[in-house]
Amino acid sequence: MKSVGVGCLVLLMVMLHAAEAAVVKYDWNVDYMFGAPDCVEKLILAVNGQYPSPTIRAVEGDTVVVKITNHIPTESVVFHWHGMHQRGTPYFDGAAYVSQCPINPGEIFTYKFKVDRAGTYFYHGHFGMQRSGGLYGSLIVDLPASKKEPFAYDGEHSILLNDWWHKSIYEQELGLNSVPFRFVGEPQSLLIEGRGKYNCSLYPATVPPTPGCLTCNATSPKCAPHVIPVTPGKTYRLRIASVASLSSLNFILEGHKMTVVQADGRYIKPFDVYNLDVYSGQTYDVLFTADQDASKNYWAAINVRGRNPKTPTGLAVLQYLPNEATLLPTTPAPVSPIWNDTATSISLAKQILAKVGYEAAPPKKSHRTIVILGTQNNINGNLKWALNNISYVHNPTPVIAALKYNIKGAIDSTPPPDYPVQDYNIFVPPKPSLSANYGSPLYVFKRGSVVDVIVQNSNTLTPNNSEIHPWHLHGHDFWVLGYGQGMYDSTKDAASFNLIDPPVRNTAAVFPYGWVALRFVADNPGAWPFHCHIEPHFHMGMGTVFAEGIHNLPKLPSQTLGCGLTKGLHR
Amino acid sequence: MKSVGVGCLVLLMVMLHAAEAAVVKYDWNVDYMFGAPDCVEKLILAVNGQYPSPTIRAVEGDTVVVKITNHIPTESVVFHWHGMHQRGTPYFDGAAYVSQCPINPGEIFTYKFKVDRAGTYFYHGHFGMQRSGGLYGSLIVDLPASKKEPFAYDGEHSILLNDWWHKSIYEQELGLNSVPFRFVGEPQSLLIEGRGKYNCSLYPATVPPTPGCLTCNATSPKCAPHVIPVTPGKTYRLRIASVASLSSLNFILEGHKMTVVQADGRYIKPFDVYNLDVYSGQTYDVLFTADQDASKNYWAAINVRGRNPKTPTGLAVLQYLPNEATLLPTTPAPVSPIWNDTATSISLAKQILAKVGYEAAPPKKSHRTIVILGTQNNINGNLKWALNNISYVHNPTPVIAALKYNIKGAIDSTPPPDYPVQDYNIFVPPKPSLSANYGSPLYVFKRGSVVDVIVQNSNTLTPNNSEIHPWHLHGHDFWVLGYGQGMYDSTKDAASFNLIDPPVRNTAAVFPYGWVALRFVADNPGAWPFHCHIEPHFHMGMGTVFAEGIHNLPKLPSQTLGCGLTKGLHR
Repeated sequence: MKSVGVGCLVLLMVMLHAAEAAVVKYDWNVDYMFGAPDCVEKLILAVNGQYPSPTIRAVEGDTVVVKITNHIPTESVVFHWHGMHQRGTPYFDGAAYVSQCPINPGEIFTYKFKVDRAGTYFYHGHFGMQRSGGLYGSLIVDLPASKKEPFAYDGEHSILLNDWWHKSIYEQELGLNSVPFRFVGEPQSLLIEGRGKYNCSLYPATVPPTPGCLTCNATSPKCAPHVIPVTPGKTYRLRIASVASLSSLNFILEGHKMTVVQADGRYIKPFDVYNLDVYSGQTYDVLFTADQDASKNYWAAINVRGRNPKTPTGLAVLQYLPNEATLLPTTPAPVSPIWNDTATSISLAKQILAKVGYEAAPPKKSHRTIVILGTQNNINGNLKWALNNISYVHNPTPVIAALKYNIKGAIDSTPPPDYPVQDYNIFVPPKPSLSANYGSPLYVFKRGSVVDVIVQNSNTLTPNNSEIHPWHLHGHDFWVLGYGQGMYDSTKDAASFNLIDPPVRNTAAVFPYGWVALRFVADNPGAWPFHCHIEPHFHMGMGTVFAEGIHNLPKLPSQTLGCGLTKGLHR
Repeated sequence: MKSVGVGCLVLLMVMLHAAEAAVVKYDWNVDYMFGAPDCVEKLILAVNGQYPSPTIRAVEGDTVVVKITNHIPTESVVFHWHGMHQRGTPYFDGAAYVSQCPINPGEIFTYKFKVDRAGTYFYHGHFGMQRSGGLYGSLIVDLPASKKEPFAYDGEHSILLNDWWHKSIYEQELGLNSVPFRFVGEPQSLLIEGRGKYNCSLYPATVPPTPGCLTCNATSPKCAPHVIPVTPGKTYRLRIASVASLSSLNFILEGHKMTVVQADGRYIKPFDVYNLDVYSGQTYDVLFTADQDASKNYWAAINVRGRNPKTPTGLAVLQYLPNEATLLPTTPAPVSPIWNDTATSISLAKQILAKVGYEAAPPKKSHRTIVILGTQNNINGNLKWALNNISYVHNPTPVIAALKYNIKGAIDSTPPPDYPVQDYNIFVPPKPSLSANYGSPLYVFKRGSVVDVIVQNSNTLTPNNSEIHPWHLHGHDFWVLGYGQGMYDSTKDAASFNLIDPPVRNTAAVFPYGWVALRFVADNPGAWPFHCHIEPHFHMGMGTVFAEGIHNLPKLPSQTLGCGLTKGLHR
């Protein structure tokens, strides 16, 4: 359980006074800490000495104010409020070098934004690979008393899912940028709400465990499994969010049927599952009833999908009260569908539809379509990802400032291509002649226009290999109009789009050798990253920036500036 | 051997054209790299993929221009040019949050300064513990052709000495800031010019070596010992600099007498030694003649002094040509005076006197005397160092900008005390009632005034323990007027000051339970750190800032601003 920090006390005090829209304040100190989420000690990025970082909880319509003090000696940070649209406050979106300058060591930075829609969200670091370093937490927005959910439950719990490495993120980042390439590899552990248990005996004999692994034992309070307590017979809402760095995860509540009712904070047509794929960047709200043998506890479990797994199941305990939390299930760890059973994953994705009457249908037509082909490329010996042959690199001037103040040289003046090169064969590795380049591309959309984005997957540099990529858009939700296999063909595939009840989301997966079609309205002035939510992939260039309403951008707070070409004293 | 980088080529081209004062340009890319200086792989901070960072070489009067591009994903950097006075360019002194904002990831920053005095210097990172992380290199300033050294030699070599840890500096920094305190511990290796050899079998049986240690073997080119080649019978100038993080080092050139001719780039009265204490932040120029049995090679060696050593001797090879560099000496590693033989160290320090006629004598009187008592304190459970009860913490607004633009709240408005509390007993641990506080103190001196600084040592929090601290002043050299034992007594100790031929330096050690008296002229407008050069000690608060000529400060280049209260767009 998390300790109650100063931030929580402030929150409680504020909420006691709040009948209507309130201001919910948090005071966060960011620093390194020694943690052992899976019983192996490592340096973690933490807020108020907590891992995961503290939960933010507010009511729809509230204003959340988070005062950040960066205590890290030499490293800057930002916080992205994943799923928040930041209407009117695009400079508080928390994407380093897109919406703001990173917060320097010693600085205080105050985020202030409205939480305009109830649902299950989260937040995380959005600079380098700081999310993988541990900088993330839950962001739960409740419905106001005047509104009711279209489903009933007796209690709720929220859990963050992720994967975990023992190597520092700095070594991971360097490895990804090295020639020869050093991949981060498969995670050592899978964590539920920041807890897992690494089996030290898993280190190969030739690679002895690190000294920290000596603390690896079941009684260590830091890495005891997370516990989800339930009262037999009651129904619970489980708020599930994946902040995974690399892995596509499959969630199982041993022996319990789950009814999925929300995705990314938006209502979907309820459906039942016994296991659920959750891609990094996605959240799901599921209902389950504690209707099993009450003399036992059960496993809550996550397994890797989409990559050949080398990581043991991540386990938490579903505790049937009044059983002790320490009464571990004697059953084996739950098994998910096999990792490369893509058909099952696609089938699940297609099952997710909007709840009619609760979510609006998309506009019938779009004004502009862009097709973004994601490829893995070798750029001068470096392994990178690229979109339409451009591998994204950050420019130290925030894109939003470059646009607002018309700063030359901060972004590429040449617009990126709306389409891939013609006749690209997605079924084989990219030809060396199609090698990508580095860039900081920007897609500018007419304000209020309807945009279709087709994300096209392809074969990596390895023959017969194509990976899952969960695509996340900042500042907007999009309608997921459809999934297809092979190369997207506008002349026939657009006709298959679901314009009736497509789900509304902020993160959608594109499957191996397939495409996903997204539609959104460019009605939120600002600059918004659109990127693969796999941390190493974005770090290796798999992202771009969308912008709209440039001339409607508000004045940028000076606390968001000071880096790159926004340097200089403002007096 | 270092590879010849782009920077060196530029240098050569520029130097070929330079008969008189030249502009010497370097183009540096700063990033992490995987290195194995002592055969154990670790993430290192590097310039142009080199460790140590490239050597800067210029001629007295030249202007050095160093263009820095920071490629580190989330960490900012600065470079301090240790021993350079930065007259007229105090904003290029490279002390984070004193003379400039740190250089953000992705940014380009160009240092430009005059090297106004020939000698042996070095440069290093000056943010957090980035020097310990590997960010340092030699800075050699040659005499112009029109001037001659008052000593003769046939060739020269320069070597950087340091101590090395396998734990990352981020973990080291966190440990130093943790409750309970986790000390960095004694170094795993001692390095000469960035090379050493860790004996993997030294890890205790209960702590297996890290995976990287598997590369530990004598044939690894990355960690073969550094080689100093000499021709028998010739005399060499050896430029020695210590960038050690923690250790006081003793340097030995096996079987060779050394004549010490310069200290910190300034002329001293030559004297002979067979071993030489070099404190972190100091440089020495010594002459030696290759006059031993030419059929053999010899060890160049460093040992720890001042702390009970747990680190094996650091070794390089003095190669008598035409012997092979791989012909290792069969003699045991040279032995230095025992670590706690302080009398020998003090005796050596007192032997160092200015070379009359080459260095000016100090002004006969000072206008102001400050006595700075360094203590180890427990502040709310944190182990810290303090000066006159203030433990230095950086404020994210550069001090120089706070002064120049009169920015409120950036520095402590209350001047720090000129004297310690009365009747402080330096021979016992500090009383809990004298606990220190955090602060960002600033001593402001009248421009052109003569200042005496007495640094007073004391007992740490451990009974019967007092440590050596090498004190370094930015922007100035000082005269070392004297060393004494016990509490400084102005009524009698000032009378003992050497006003005839005190050495001129930028770094001087204060010995256990003793004091050192320094005199300098506050004639260089700017803000200048004065701090213990032991990296963990400064990180734990053992420093302060001196300033003078505030109203004469030049306009600050906007590239040096952008952090803290200097944020905001300058248009």
